[in-house]
Amino acid sequence: MHASHLTADPALTHRRASRVVRVLGPDGRPLPDADVVVEQTQHAFGFGCTGFDFVALANGEADTAEPPPFGGATPSSAAQLADLWLGLFDTATLPFYWGGFEPVRGRPDTARLRAAAQWFAARGVRLKGHPLVWHTVQPSWLLDLSVDEVEAVQRARIRREVGDFAGLIDTWDAINEVVIMPVFDKEDNGITRLAWVRGRVAMIRMAFDEARATNPRATLLLNDFDMSSAYECLIEAVLEAGIPVDGLGLQSHMHQGYWGEERTLRTLERFSRFGPPLHLTETTLLSGEIMPADIDDLNDYVVDTWPSTPEGEERQADELVRHYRTLLSHPAVVSTTYWGLPDEGAWLGAPAGLVRRDGTPKPAYDALRALVRGEWWLAPTTVRTDSGGCLSVEGFHGEYTVRAGGAAAGFTLDAASADVVDVRLV
Amino acid sequence: MHASHLTADPALTHRRASRVVRVLGPDGRPLPDADVVVEQTQHAFGFGCTGFDFVALANGEADTAEPPPFGGATPSSAAQLADLWLGLFDTATLPFYWGGFEPVRGRPDTARLRAAAQWFAARGVRLKGHPLVWHTVQPSWLLDLSVDEVEAVQRARIRREVGDFAGLIDTWDAINEVVIMPVFDKEDNGITRLAWVRGRVAMIRMAFDEARATNPRATLLLNDFDMSSAYECLIEAVLEAGIPVDGLGLQSHMHQGYWGEERTLRTLERFSRFGPPLHLTETTLLSGEIMPADIDDLNDYVVDTWPSTPEGEERQADELVRHYRTLLSHPAVVSTTYWGLPDEGAWLGAPAGLVRRDGTPKPAYDALRALVRGEWWLAPTTVRTDSGGCLSVEGFHGEYTVRAGGAAAGFTLDAASADVVDVRLV
Repeated sequence: MHASHLTADPALTHRRASRVVRVLGPDGRPLPDADVVVEQTQHAFGFGCTGFDFVALANGEADTAEPPPFGGATPSSAAQLADLWLGLFDTATLPFYWGGFEPVRGRPDTARLRAAAQWFAARGVRLKGHPLVWHTVQPSWLLDLSVDEVEAVQRARIRREVGDFAGLIDTWDAINEVVIMPVFDKEDNGITRLAWVRGRVAMIRMAFDEARATNPRATLLLNDFDMSSAYECLIEAVLEAGIPVDGLGLQSHMHQGYWGEERTLRTLERFSRFGPPLHLTETTLLSGEIMPADIDDLNDYVVDTWPSTPEGEERQADELVRHYRTLLSHPAVVSTTYWGLPDEGAWLGAPAGLVRRDGTPKPAYDALRALVRGEWWLAPTTVRTDSGGCLSVEGFHGEYTVRAGGAAAGFTLDAASADVVDVRLV
Repeated sequence: MHASHLTADPALTHRRASRVVRVLGPDGRPLPDADVVVEQTQHAFGFGCTGFDFVALANGEADTAEPPPFGGATPSSAAQLADLWLGLFDTATLPFYWGGFEPVRGRPDTARLRAAAQWFAARGVRLKGHPLVWHTVQPSWLLDLSVDEVEAVQRARIRREVGDFAGLIDTWDAINEVVIMPVFDKEDNGITRLAWVRGRVAMIRMAFDEARATNPRATLLLNDFDMSSAYECLIEAVLEAGIPVDGLGLQSHMHQGYWGEERTLRTLERFSRFGPPLHLTETTLLSGEIMPADIDDLNDYVVDTWPSTPEGEERQADELVRHYRTLLSHPAVVSTTYWGLPDEGAWLGAPAGLVRRDGTPKPAYDALRALVRGEWWLAPTTVRTDSGGCLSVEGFHGEYTVRAGGAAAGFTLDAASADVVDVRLV
């Protein structure tokens, strides 16, 4: 009835381009019959992961007895993880949870987060801040304020973070989990109080208005874990309100088991019909026991140990590959973020990482890398230009370089590229 | 955190008024020191029930081998039920399910429904039509039409029914169960196809625009069974879209057990904060076994027999009284509709009625009547006017009459009434 399988294309044709590249020398003249090396340097698609593990490392901090406030690995473990992270991912989500970022009013963690963002940026990694508005991980001092005061400091906090990081972080989960926000009853907090009084749409308008006014270039996302009709209805409300949403964030913590291709495609189809691109913002697949299906709030599941198992690791690798193939098969999806590279410090203690506690990669890491930097990637390839200086490049949408001798130049391959792409080496 | 218990008032102060009534004779002069009889004739609050049972009876039809298309009692049973119905309820919901109302295109059941509506109206009963747009109980001929054609005939059908019954039925469930409408997957149908393409808000706008244009005086309700955040989000979408909703319909089929006071108040509080009055449009409480909690769609539960039991009947009576007290304690609630007086022909075969299959009232009937026409009602009462012709009346908001000798007159008691209400007998 709903044409999911018409929209999705397992061949990923919509993500590939084939173009003639004309290589020009530094003098601007075509370089005929020359051996050049072509290689991909970045995907257009965002292959993301949380970057929480590297905040302390980027700040040169030593390991401490206390776990990092946002989870993640210790600095000494992070140093070992960096190559694995950079060998697979190109987009990092950094933690701006208000309660962790500004536990003492007026003392935001700006400098540490800036160092972390710069650490990633220096390595060619794109960045996203998460989140500007959320009702959990709240600073306790917010509870002393009136609803009007909460709104005022929340607005100021959005402007401050978006402004302080503009140019470094230009993508934000502007607001997180709005479906449950006003009726969240696990913990009293100022944001739920505000959302109850103002309504969901007003909360979203506040987040988007403040962030947009501060950084007009920003890509601003609505993000939610609720994949039910509730989120669809909320999106309709936001669109009716005329709030310009740059992307819809869909969480997919699969602690209770892999969704499977059919449910995944159906979910993508349901949310893609509203228009904004889809960001799969929080993806996890376990390499150990699956959480029982009757747990409603994942946070309620507390276990002493939750080991990664050999069978679990094989299953995780299989499911991860199937899941990423499914996500990329749908044209509306523009990024995925895996929710944590290492098991160390993983949310809920789950074996959700792609790297074991001993720092070795699980099969899922290798399997996903074989896609992202293998099957879907153009490794350095020597090609000979024809008599007109031209060569053909077929590859995934993204950034590429051509090198010849000591000169090099980059070009972009995407659906908008000209039929013949001129690349002038310098 | 959310002030449910501040809004609700178990003393029902918000539903009562106390006023001085000055009784004037036919000559316009006060009637001092006279015995007059004061009595209530109607509640302002709508104590509703489905009127499906009386459609055939009102049309003078004989019993047939086939069950009535909308459920409900046979005509011969209905004749026995009429006094019980009228002795408790004052507002009837009549069935306009498209598949039953117009099974053959172009042959709507208008005349029969008009006779039924007139039957109730002649007995002082207020009326509501249910529903103008819904994705189930659809005419099969709709499946042959394109999406654009479905929209055209749906719009025409709204105008036809609302126009044909204007003045007789001025309250409508304009659209039913929109949260699930576009993603309903139990049965292919034209309305789900339309809702998938157009979106939920567009469906609601269509229903309200057409009905309002046809009958500007109509009271138009949005109605849903989904009491989750999804319905809240949908309501926000509707309000953002600027669609004037006269009331929010909340279904409460409690086949899986009584909600209890806390959940009920919390639900009322969640939905009352949007502004429009609340109509508890579909209420049921069982006098037999409770449906297992793991049934997701109530329609999936099929049993051979589902008897009313003595223990069940006592429980039902207790819960019904508690439920109605809770509903009336919240100022936002303006009506309730019990979903079927008799067990005969009840939805799902459940013992959800207030009257047994043998036609005798269950304890719940008597208990609810003791509230609606007892504790919350002013029965005919003889009062002596003072020397100025005045007397005090304290009672529920509603309609009242005063009689003296052969003369009588009516008056309204509500929050807007003047301090002294002049009533001139004629």
